[in-house]
Amino acid sequence: MKDDLMNKLMEEVMKKMDEVKETGTVAAATGTGVSGLTEFVGTAVGNTIGFVIANVDKSLHEAMKIDPKYRSIGILSARTGAGPQVFAADEAVKATNSEIVSVEFARDTEGGAGHGSLIIFGAEDVSDAKRAVEVALNDLNRTFGDVYGNASGHLEFQYTARASFACNYVFGAPIGRAFGIIVGAPAGIGVLMSDAALKAANVDLVGYSSPDNGGTKFSNESMIFITGDAGAVRQAIYAAREVGKQALEALGGPCPSTTTPYI
Amino acid sequence: MKDDLMNKLMEEVMKKMDEVKETGTVAAATGTGVSGLTEFVGTAVGNTIGFVIANVDKSLHEAMKIDPKYRSIGILSARTGAGPQVFAADEAVKATNSEIVSVEFARDTEGGAGHGSLIIFGAEDVSDAKRAVEVALNDLNRTFGDVYGNASGHLEFQYTARASFACNYVFGAPIGRAFGIIVGAPAGIGVLMSDAALKAANVDLVGYSSPDNGGTKFSNESMIFITGDAGAVRQAIYAAREVGKQALEALGGPCPSTTTPYI
Amino acid sequence: MKDDLMNKLMEEVMKKMDEVKETGTVAAATGTGVSGLTEFVGTAVGNTIGFVIANVDKSLHEAMKIDPKYRSIGILSARTGAGPQVFAADEAVKATNSEIVSVEFARDTEGGAGHGSLIIFGAEDVSDAKRAVEVALNDLNRTFGDVYGNASGHLEFQYTARASFACNYVFGAPIGRAFGIIVGAPAGIGVLMSDAALKAANVDLVGYSSPDNGGTKFSNESMIFITGDAGAVRQAIYAAREVGKQALEALGGPCPSTTTPYI
Repeated sequence: MKDDLMNKLMEEVMKKMDEVKETGTVAAATGTGVSGLTEFVGTAVGNTIGFVIANVDKSLHEAMKIDPKYRSIGILSARTGAGPQVFAADEAVKATNSEIVSVEFARDTEGGAGHGSLIIFGAEDVSDAKRAVEVALNDLNRTFGDVYGNASGHLEFQYTARASFACNYVFGAPIGRAFGIIVGAPAGIGVLMSDAALKAANVDLVGYSSPDNGGTKFSNESMIFITGDAGAVRQAIYAAREVGKQALEALGGPCPSTTTPYI
Repeated sequence: MKDDLMNKLMEEVMKKMDEVKETGTVAAATGTGVSGLTEFVGTAVGNTIGFVIANVDKSLHEAMKIDPKYRSIGILSARTGAGPQVFAADEAVKATNSEIVSVEFARDTEGGAGHGSLIIFGAEDVSDAKRAVEVALNDLNRTFGDVYGNASGHLEFQYTARASFACNYVFGAPIGRAFGIIVGAPAGIGVLMSDAALKAANVDLVGYSSPDNGGTKFSNESMIFITGDAGAVRQAIYAAREVGKQALEALGGPCPSTTTPYI
Repeated sequence: MKDDLMNKLMEEVMKKMDEVKETGTVAAATGTGVSGLTEFVGTAVGNTIGFVIANVDKSLHEAMKIDPKYRSIGILSARTGAGPQVFAADEAVKATNSEIVSVEFARDTEGGAGHGSLIIFGAEDVSDAKRAVEVALNDLNRTFGDVYGNASGHLEFQYTARASFACNYVFGAPIGRAFGIIVGAPAGIGVLMSDAALKAANVDLVGYSSPDNGGTKFSNESMIFITGDAGAVRQAIYAAREVGKQALEALGGPCPSTTTPYI
């Protein structure tokens, strides 16, 4: 058998593996994306799935420590991604009559260096919970836009002109202000980008997390959370993105966006 | 080269990758499954391996905090699976003169969303420790029967008509009563199944765990532990399994059993 | 299509997947390994990357809790490997005018059973920080020599005739004495090797870690840290390596060294 045929095949296989790891799109594409379940809302990039429960079982409601005033919950659950889902949930709570009940991060990304996530919305009415999940699912294509990756790691940037309750709950973002996050994996790239960002613009450092300081649940990421003037936060992100891409490409080759950059 | 040949190849490759991820059977098949080591007992599904140590080194015995009365230990260690190994160990302590010394969960499953496990049996006599490991290894084909998976996640159900010391140690199961667990990944599927289970039958909720509440060691799973009448526990599991399969298939396509369903 | 052609292809694919998982060399090979960044130092096996920051941003410096006397930091960050990087850093602090600022372990290895790592060196002068990172990167080919792996797990052994500050910081190694570590995954293999090592030679047990006792951050590894006479430490490692290889090969077939054994 010819070696170059083998090489061509291997190339395709490796490419496919990377796609699966980074975005989950291949896996999602193999699913039907629809379901006969009344609770099912939809699926999105990152092996993300959304449900709604109109009237949560009483004993489960207590075990999950959900505020008794929310009879209905919306569920946004993903194998790959935490920042994209949190920023999408931030838009969802702005746009709907729902609130953030809890946000949990798993150490996941299907063999990658980051997180999966479980976000619970609470609402008094099931239609509000459902609308929150729909808004978030629809926003994920945007919030995966500044997630860049290759087989060696990933970079993530998120920005909002006006942080709301999801960003406040998770990152301590000041509500109503411009806010961004800068994430790099392996973690050293996160440290490098954080330094570049903070030197590039006059922003306030809200928080720093690294693999074993309690913040990242043992993911191989370092990250900062920043606030300030809208222009300054974006400028800091641009500076970080430039050095981050050079660093990650030196380690693992081209690191394209998962969808389309939005910042 | 024809595209459909390439597609066919990619399909086979993806299938193979899934098999490896979910059950470890391919990897196991490449090993000999036998060894010249006197301590070696055997291997099983889930990249599970079993050993026995007749007389544990004194300093290691202390460091592992093993009760001094157990000179001999049996070791059941797996890359993929925690529930299957715990329920197999439950049968092992019922059937042999051994006890559970410790059960630890690792965040593993070879890139998947769940756990690996390390279970230590204690016995005064090495033949008892060995027998416990043998019983557990032989039971794994059964306890992997209600583990369902695809590239996007997995579902796990376990049931025993009479919980023993392993289920009590790990899940707080009441000894001698019917007991079951319901696990879904990504975690949102676990929440959905838990709600369905608790609404379907009159069972008692023993515990709930999710990615970042301390219970699941950052796996991307939510799960409940239930007890009650044998029929009710099984009925709750059937209801959960039905909605869980629909949800996971909407996300990632068909999710077959790892071996053969037993519940 | 002929089945044996398909089988041959699958074999090649599985081999390639293993390479990626265990050493990261394939991924690294796709990168350029050079970068226009002034902070970039280099890359090495295990998807390891090194940087230097001459003058860390003040707010980041505080958030990272770096001792104010170090203006400059060196960064050694890896997707795969903790022991190899710590022992390489140990040589780096011996050989340069730098110190260990922090060592953090992530639960990583790109879908494998172990860790990635983030090591920060501190120095008053940037040239010292840079030299430390260079020495460590150059030493990684050696320290990956006694890392053995297959699709089912891995074994790791490290040895130094004279432990320095990195080994002291991470493992509690007595400075200036012979010191070694013995690591096995899945964790049961680590227990088996630890017992064999401690029975084979008169060494002192410095520490024991397992998946869920706080030490290994939920990796699927058990490990011991040992000190004593140089000959005894090596003898303990040889005994562990012999049983470890037999056990891991029984589970997953041949488990070659990542580079070239050095102990």
